[in-house]
Amino acid sequence: MIEVGIIGGAGYTGLELLRLLLMHPHVEISVVTSRRYRGRRITDVNPHLERFTELEYEDVDTREIADRCDVVFLAVPHGSAMDYVPELLHAGTRVIDLSADYRLSRAEYERIYRRRHNDPEMEHRNAVYGLTELHPEVADATLVANPGCYPTGAILAVAPIVNSRMVNRVVFDAKSGISGAGAEPSENSHFPNLAENIIPYEVTTHRHVAEMRKELPDAKVCFTPHVIPAIRGILTTAHLFLAEGAYSYTELESRLETLYEQFYKGKKFVRLIKRIPSLGAVRGTNFCDIWFGVDENSDRVVVISAIDNLVKGGSGQAIQNMNLMFGLDESAGLWQPGVVP
Amino acid sequence: MIEVGIIGGAGYTGLELLRLLLMHPHVEISVVTSRRYRGRRITDVNPHLERFTELEYEDVDTREIADRCDVVFLAVPHGSAMDYVPELLHAGTRVIDLSADYRLSRAEYERIYRRRHNDPEMEHRNAVYGLTELHPEVADATLVANPGCYPTGAILAVAPIVNSRMVNRVVFDAKSGISGAGAEPSENSHFPNLAENIIPYEVTTHRHVAEMRKELPDAKVCFTPHVIPAIRGILTTAHLFLAEGAYSYTELESRLETLYEQFYKGKKFVRLIKRIPSLGAVRGTNFCDIWFGVDENSDRVVVISAIDNLVKGGSGQAIQNMNLMFGLDESAGLWQPGVVP
Amino acid sequence: MIEVGIIGGAGYTGLELLRLLLMHPHVEISVVTSRRYRGRRITDVNPHLERFTELEYEDVDTREIADRCDVVFLAVPHGSAMDYVPELLHAGTRVIDLSADYRLSRAEYERIYRRRHNDPEMEHRNAVYGLTELHPEVADATLVANPGCYPTGAILAVAPIVNSRMVNRVVFDAKSGISGAGAEPSENSHFPNLAENIIPYEVTTHRHVAEMRKELPDAKVCFTPHVIPAIRGILTTAHLFLAEGAYSYTELESRLETLYEQFYKGKKFVRLIKRIPSLGAVRGTNFCDIWFGVDENSDRVVVISAIDNLVKGGSGQAIQNMNLMFGLDESAGLWQPGVVP
Amino acid sequence: MIEVGIIGGAGYTGLELLRLLLMHPHVEISVVTSRRYRGRRITDVNPHLERFTELEYEDVDTREIADRCDVVFLAVPHGSAMDYVPELLHAGTRVIDLSADYRLSRAEYERIYRRRHNDPEMEHRNAVYGLTELHPEVADATLVANPGCYPTGAILAVAPIVNSRMVNRVVFDAKSGISGAGAEPSENSHFPNLAENIIPYEVTTHRHVAEMRKELPDAKVCFTPHVIPAIRGILTTAHLFLAEGAYSYTELESRLETLYEQFYKGKKFVRLIKRIPSLGAVRGTNFCDIWFGVDENSDRVVVISAIDNLVKGGSGQAIQNMNLMFGLDESAGLWQPGVVP
Repeated sequence: MIEVGIIGGAGYTGLELLRLLLMHPHVEISVVTSRRYRGRRITDVNPHLERFTELEYEDVDTREIADRCDVVFLAVPHGSAMDYVPELLHAGTRVIDLSADYRLSRAEYERIYRRRHNDPEMEHRNAVYGLTELHPEVADATLVANPGCYPTGAILAVAPIVNSRMVNRVVFDAKSGISGAGAEPSENSHFPNLAENIIPYEVTTHRHVAEMRKELPDAKVCFTPHVIPAIRGILTTAHLFLAEGAYSYTELESRLETLYEQFYKGKKFVRLIKRIPSLGAVRGTNFCDIWFGVDENSDRVVVISAIDNLVKGGSGQAIQNMNLMFGLDESAGLWQPGVVP
Repeated sequence: MIEVGIIGGAGYTGLELLRLLLMHPHVEISVVTSRRYRGRRITDVNPHLERFTELEYEDVDTREIADRCDVVFLAVPHGSAMDYVPELLHAGTRVIDLSADYRLSRAEYERIYRRRHNDPEMEHRNAVYGLTELHPEVADATLVANPGCYPTGAILAVAPIVNSRMVNRVVFDAKSGISGAGAEPSENSHFPNLAENIIPYEVTTHRHVAEMRKELPDAKVCFTPHVIPAIRGILTTAHLFLAEGAYSYTELESRLETLYEQFYKGKKFVRLIKRIPSLGAVRGTNFCDIWFGVDENSDRVVVISAIDNLVKGGSGQAIQNMNLMFGLDESAGLWQPGVVP
Repeated sequence: MIEVGIIGGAGYTGLELLRLLLMHPHVEISVVTSRRYRGRRITDVNPHLERFTELEYEDVDTREIADRCDVVFLAVPHGSAMDYVPELLHAGTRVIDLSADYRLSRAEYERIYRRRHNDPEMEHRNAVYGLTELHPEVADATLVANPGCYPTGAILAVAPIVNSRMVNRVVFDAKSGISGAGAEPSENSHFPNLAENIIPYEVTTHRHVAEMRKELPDAKVCFTPHVIPAIRGILTTAHLFLAEGAYSYTELESRLETLYEQFYKGKKFVRLIKRIPSLGAVRGTNFCDIWFGVDENSDRVVVISAIDNLVKGGSGQAIQNMNLMFGLDESAGLWQPGVVP
Repeated sequence: MIEVGIIGGAGYTGLELLRLLLMHPHVEISVVTSRRYRGRRITDVNPHLERFTELEYEDVDTREIADRCDVVFLAVPHGSAMDYVPELLHAGTRVIDLSADYRLSRAEYERIYRRRHNDPEMEHRNAVYGLTELHPEVADATLVANPGCYPTGAILAVAPIVNSRMVNRVVFDAKSGISGAGAEPSENSHFPNLAENIIPYEVTTHRHVAEMRKELPDAKVCFTPHVIPAIRGILTTAHLFLAEGAYSYTELESRLETLYEQFYKGKKFVRLIKRIPSLGAVRGTNFCDIWFGVDENSDRVVVISAIDNLVKGGSGQAIQNMNLMFGLDESAGLWQPGVVP
């Protein structure tokens, strides 16, 4: 069994790790931390886990966590993960960081997250960007920088076509369930504000665009997120504008089909589907469903992807990465159909 | 492996059986029928099952289904199940009927469902009412009459206290997600009618009350259902009025606690919880969460239960019954925490 | 024009007063207070009122408010209203208090709200309980204790039948939109907690039951509230159990029809309707829609009422009372059909 | 009083005309037609209008309607309006057509709606495209082609900047409440399909793009609609890519501010707001709220508009046009703040 720790086990990311790891056939959870709930049984705070664990939340030091675990998931806010990583790695424990702390270069990170990065060795840690389908080298990583939820849905949607240099520009217009904003009540998560509404936010300034640009260097990338009145899921509408002369319309559709099929061949969690994706079909799962349509009246292709923001967009992909790091099938503990309806 | 058939595999009940049985470690699905979709791949119609099955919907005769299956789930409308049961049983195939056709006596059935019952042997079939926690004899059944969704949540909520004859009267005020109304669009499921609303229906006339009265003979039983703007789940608010003299207030709370704990001791899928149940905690699961509160100002006890109407209220309980019929642990293929958030 | 003040103009109750009073043909708003937003234009904080007012939020003393107003609406929390009432009344300004501070006797208030009542003259103020249809004497009041949202929907639903002494017991099982919990984000209003759920709360202990009992002395009254995933509206399901011998079933339905029609004759805002009420039909309006059904199998009558909790259940009824106090038609500024769909 | 007729008074467009016209101070409704409900009282079918009208649905011939009305609203499906227009105009009755039948040139119409246009005089009718703020000549029209819901939100959002020839390309990514799909239950309006989801549809093929292109000839226009789990409202996210050399970034923001203010000066129903628009703020109203943001990292401007699809996107704008045609203030009967929360 893999001995696993979760630092930050009371937020939505931590809870989703718990939901999935408690059922994982090759994992034993050794420690789950929460400062707020230290000493309380996990099931007292989270009745949906009743009968699945007897663990208590702990608040122990990093060294001890390292001793008790083969791998640690960091489900803490941006800016906090960097306080744990050096010591964990030093102790030989592998780390999967769900925060943004190791996703970008130091310069990019400090510019975009507007804070200093405390880890002096940051850029020598060889963190692998854990978008599993694009980075198989995750299997050999000791530190994984797990992607943001929006970048996961966005990059998977367009990587095959953008990487083939057919595209000038991509506009990602993304729509997310509100669970991405976390477990703390806020203005946007206040039911009367979100119900019967859709809320664009950080319309031209959302930080996740940096990950998209890093992974999609061959096109101009724009990004605008919205929250929708839904709990889970991100539907990304990607509008792509093709480089002139790069294509013939009559063949574009079949060419794209081939491109996507080859690109995602053998990838268990990417499904190329024949109808427009739905958040229900991926609810609770690690799948990314993808569909595209060609605009006959213009030089535009629209690609639509659907993921569960807490699974493929977070904790599920983190476990997928853990599976590969420990030589397991990538789908171990993650193979479930969507909760439909 | 248990060879399983699903008659009526395109409605919500059938789809939920598929979602759960495709992951069941001891089951192989042999046949899934649908007249409407015969010959089409199940995944073409239901993209969320993509990568989980290669089966096609079939439309074959009952005899052949019996030959190919150890047990058949009937996920067909009331009044249709009785057309399959005699032949399946005659061929030695066990049957779990999710319709109402074998839940009541012939007289009750014909009065309440306002149709003749076609099966002349109806009352000699020894159908067991499959509310698993109350009817362990389901393990020996050849025909299970799986309970209605509302009766499951209602009866489990109050059986310990009603059966102890402390109660004069129960009012079940139930609130259900709309998936109970089926996959076909209707007035009540039309989004502008249901959103920002709650719809009482069959306020004094819902047929499920007959099952409740049969299982709770020791109290007067009333029932009013509502649909809420939610997909899954039934929350039942049971208002119980105590028989005079039957209790002393000061001890009532601890007495009830003991009563419930003893009644549900060892029942894996009933959780007595310390806070008010939530539909999220049981979403996608076979659990029934129960809480009660005593009204200090009156002779009332309020019991609240939460189930997923499609799982414990339908397909999940059907599989729980199958497990017992085939000597498996009752939780095989059903052991999952709720999808929270 | 009636000069009007609103103390507490930034919460949902205050905003709803603004929405309605800004369109009222006989009202001029003189002052709107908010400590939090003092000095800011109302429209800066509430863009939906843009083009309807140039006013700023103020934070002025009670004496000045009294000088500038003919009537003041108190849209402040329970326990605060009593700090304003004496001085306002002393200055000759009429007061409509939307808090609970003057709805009950001192003893009841102090027991239920668990605080001392600071107004020594509290019980000599002759506050009229402003459930308009039941208390026409509101027209002569100088102080109106505007009812709670739940009592409004509950009492209107059953007053005709309970007051005729036909009923032993009433159980109010109420379902409210979350706006009743106010504009501040909270656990219950957190979208992932409320969506796909229905939340019972204060199941046997909600304070509003005291108002119901006061207005319905002829029956035993129980009350359990729930919040539903909706912004506005309260649907009340009232289960009534009839006194034995008091009725003959064959005539009960027509007898009730007559009873309700006579009781609400000429009441503009109570509509007795032939189908089950819907929250949409009263959305944004001051109507209370009522329907009843008789349970043939028992001695139960079910009455269902629908109101908009912020209008008839709060600010609208307050304005209806103001209209009567100033000799206007009760519907002035309030006559609008529901926002359907 | 203006004598008004509504042809097609039972769908959502017709009902919204009724909701607004029944309160209009200068209108008397003479006739409302519905084949389905002929002879039934409007309030029997629509309880929310109880106490606001005594009218019955009728099914009378066009000639009689013309005789009884000064102006007729056509709230019928595309392809049906053209059967009424010639006779109504011939009789001297003015017509406001809410269908698409007179919005485009004959050639465009027949290509896009894939049907022949039956009115031989179609192009000599001088139908005015009723996007009121852009077409003041509507005041002199005898036939108004009322715009589609999506074009209204989209065109108003970008007309100032596109018409000034600063823009190469616009991508409209629109999100609509489901009421735009009509009162008949359908796959997309089925609650379990839409809740916890967002549904893109006609992703590259929606017919409304033709209206947008006609009104915005100075830019390449793309359009992708989605339905969101909400009843009312359209939020349009317009991504604009600027023509090179046409601007200096440092001044762009203030330049756009000036541009929008001048363009919409004196327009009562367009509000340029300082924060991101919300569907709540326009709910039930005829407003279009607009906000823009400049993307510092690219050559993109994002404009966001919010309308109520049934009011400004349909029946409200139709009444605004009627007001101008009859010399009234454009806001008569339409001046209401949004229903917030």
